[in-house]
Amino acid sequence: MLDHIAETSASAAGQTRASAFPPGVAWIDGRFVSMEEARIPVLDWGFLRSDATYDVVHVWQGKFFRLDAHVERFQRSVEKLRMKLPFERAELEAILHACVRRAGLRDAYVEMICTRGHSPDFSRDPRKAINRFIAFAIPFGWIATEEQRRRGLSLWVASIPRIPPASVDPTVKNYHWLDLVQGMFEAYDNNAESVVLSDGAGHITEGPGFNLFAVKDGRVYTTDRGVLEGITRRTALELCAELGLETQVAPLPLETLRSADEAFITSTAGGIMPVGQLDGKAYTQPCPGPITSALSQLYWSKHEDPAWTTPVDYDSADS
Amino acid sequence: MLDHIAETSASAAGQTRASAFPPGVAWIDGRFVSMEEARIPVLDWGFLRSDATYDVVHVWQGKFFRLDAHVERFQRSVEKLRMKLPFERAELEAILHACVRRAGLRDAYVEMICTRGHSPDFSRDPRKAINRFIAFAIPFGWIATEEQRRRGLSLWVASIPRIPPASVDPTVKNYHWLDLVQGMFEAYDNNAESVVLSDGAGHITEGPGFNLFAVKDGRVYTTDRGVLEGITRRTALELCAELGLETQVAPLPLETLRSADEAFITSTAGGIMPVGQLDGKAYTQPCPGPITSALSQLYWSKHEDPAWTTPVDYDSADS
Repeated sequence: MLDHIAETSASAAGQTRASAFPPGVAWIDGRFVSMEEARIPVLDWGFLRSDATYDVVHVWQGKFFRLDAHVERFQRSVEKLRMKLPFERAELEAILHACVRRAGLRDAYVEMICTRGHSPDFSRDPRKAINRFIAFAIPFGWIATEEQRRRGLSLWVASIPRIPPASVDPTVKNYHWLDLVQGMFEAYDNNAESVVLSDGAGHITEGPGFNLFAVKDGRVYTTDRGVLEGITRRTALELCAELGLETQVAPLPLETLRSADEAFITSTAGGIMPVGQLDGKAYTQPCPGPITSALSQLYWSKHEDPAWTTPVDYDSADS
Repeated sequence: MLDHIAETSASAAGQTRASAFPPGVAWIDGRFVSMEEARIPVLDWGFLRSDATYDVVHVWQGKFFRLDAHVERFQRSVEKLRMKLPFERAELEAILHACVRRAGLRDAYVEMICTRGHSPDFSRDPRKAINRFIAFAIPFGWIATEEQRRRGLSLWVASIPRIPPASVDPTVKNYHWLDLVQGMFEAYDNNAESVVLSDGAGHITEGPGFNLFAVKDGRVYTTDRGVLEGITRRTALELCAELGLETQVAPLPLETLRSADEAFITSTAGGIMPVGQLDGKAYTQPCPGPITSALSQLYWSKHEDPAWTTPVDYDSADS
C-alpha cells in the first residue's frame, strides 16, 4: 500500500509545488532561497506551539512604508516573548532589503518572523531553544480585491469571540488565528467575504489581518483594546488628525459599527479599504464614503513622503 | 554586511543542525525523510495561522497504545476544522507504522498532523488551500524526568488564563500554546517545573501537554471543560472505574486541587505522573500517593493488553 501512497502523493505534491508558490525570496538558516525552498523544521516550536511572532511591512513603488515602525514593533514583540534575534537591527534591515532586491520586486509584502526554534536535546523547556529568524519578500497582495475595494467589503460579525488579551497579548503580533479562520468559514456560510470578531461582550475587535473603523457624524471610531495595534491603524489615526477629524479610541460597541455612516478596515495588505456591507446589510451612504476616500487618498500619497518611506537598496552587491 | 551575515549564520545553523535533531523518520509531501529534512513551507497556513490539528500516539515495547482512539480523535479534529485528509484511515495508519519501522524504534512518540496548507494562488481563502498531512516518529519522551516522576512534579498555577473554549475549541488538539508557554516562563520565574492554567474564574484547566487530576478522600476529580479530552485522561478515568474508585468530572475549583491528598497529570508523553508541589507548597502525603501509584501501575500493565495495543508492523517491505 505504501508504494502506492508514496507514488500518488509524490506526484500530487509535485504538481502542487510546481504551481503553488509565489515568486519571491526568503532568508532562512543563513541562506537566501526561493519561496518553495523556504521551509522550517517540523520540530520548530514556532510551528508545534505557534510560539512565534512576526511583522509585515510593505514596499510600494520601490520604497518601504514605515519600516521603522514595523521593525520597532517586531523587536518589542520578540522581547515580550523572551526571544532573542540573532542580529542587530541594521543587519535585520539589510536582510529585508536583500530579500526585496533578490526578488526583483517594486511592490512587495515583506514578512519578518522570529520562532522559538527547537530544543537541541528534545527538552520541553523553551529557554533551551535556539530562536530562528526568517524573512521573505513576495509580490504585494491585497486583503480585498479591486472590485471589493471599489464597492466595499461584505463583512460578517462572527459568533466566535476573539482570543482574549488576558490569554494571548494581541499587541504581540501572533499566529493564533483558529478563531479568525473558523470565523471566516462562518462568514462564507453567510455569503459574506470576510469576518470581524467581537470580544464576546458586545464590542468589536478585529478581523483576519485588519483593524476596523466606524465613521459616524464625521467622527472616527476604533477600539483601544483586544487587537493588534496595527501600523496602518496608527497611520489612519494620524491621518485623521492631519485632516482635522475627531477620533475616539475606546471600546467599540457593535451597535456603533452597525449604525455607522461609513466603515473601513486597515491593513498593511491594502491600506485603508471600505466596508460596504455588515451582516448582509449595506451601509446607506454610497461606498466608499467621503471620509474613507479622503483617508485612503492621503494614505497612498504618503507613500511619496520621505518621512515615512525608505527606498529599497536595489544596488548593493549581493553576497 | 550580508556576506558576514550569511557566513556566520550558515555556520551557526550548520552547528545547530548537526546536533539538534532527534533520530527519527517523518513522512511529508509523499516522502519519508529524516527529522532534519522534515520541513514545511513557511507559507503553509499551518504555520502562518496555526491553522492545523494533530494527535500523538505512543509506541511502547513495539506496540502502539490505543492507536484507534488517537486516530479517531484526529479524524474528528480534521473534520471540525473543515480540512480533508488525503488518505483513508488504513493508509494513514500504514504511514504511522512505516515511520516507526524506518526509525527502528521500540519506544516512540508518533505524531500525525494535518495543516491547512497554502493557497495555490496566494488568495487568503482557506477553502482554496490544499491540506497537508505530515507524520513522524521520534524516540519516546517524558514530560517529567525520572527524578520528577519519583518525587512528583512541582507545578505553578499561572496568572494567565487558558484560551477559552468559546474562542478555540480545545477538543480539537491544536498548537495555540502562547498562553501555556508564557505560563511556563512564569512557572520557571517562581522555581516551579511546569505550569497549569486556570479558566480565569477560579477553575483549573490544563498544562502544556497534560490534563490534571486531584484526589481527595479516595475520590478522583478532573475537569469536564476547557481542556483537551486527552486519551490518557480518558484512560485514567477508565482505570479508576476498574479499580472501583469514584470519579467526579466537573469544573474543578483551584481550591480542590490545593487541598487535595494527591494530584497527578496525564499525558501520552509519560502516562500518569505525580504532582509533588503546587505553588511551592508540597502535598502532605508522601509522593507518589497510593492512588496515583495504583493508577500508574495499572496504566503500564495495560501496555500488554491486546485490547489497547497494536503491534507495530516491523516486517513489511519498505516502499
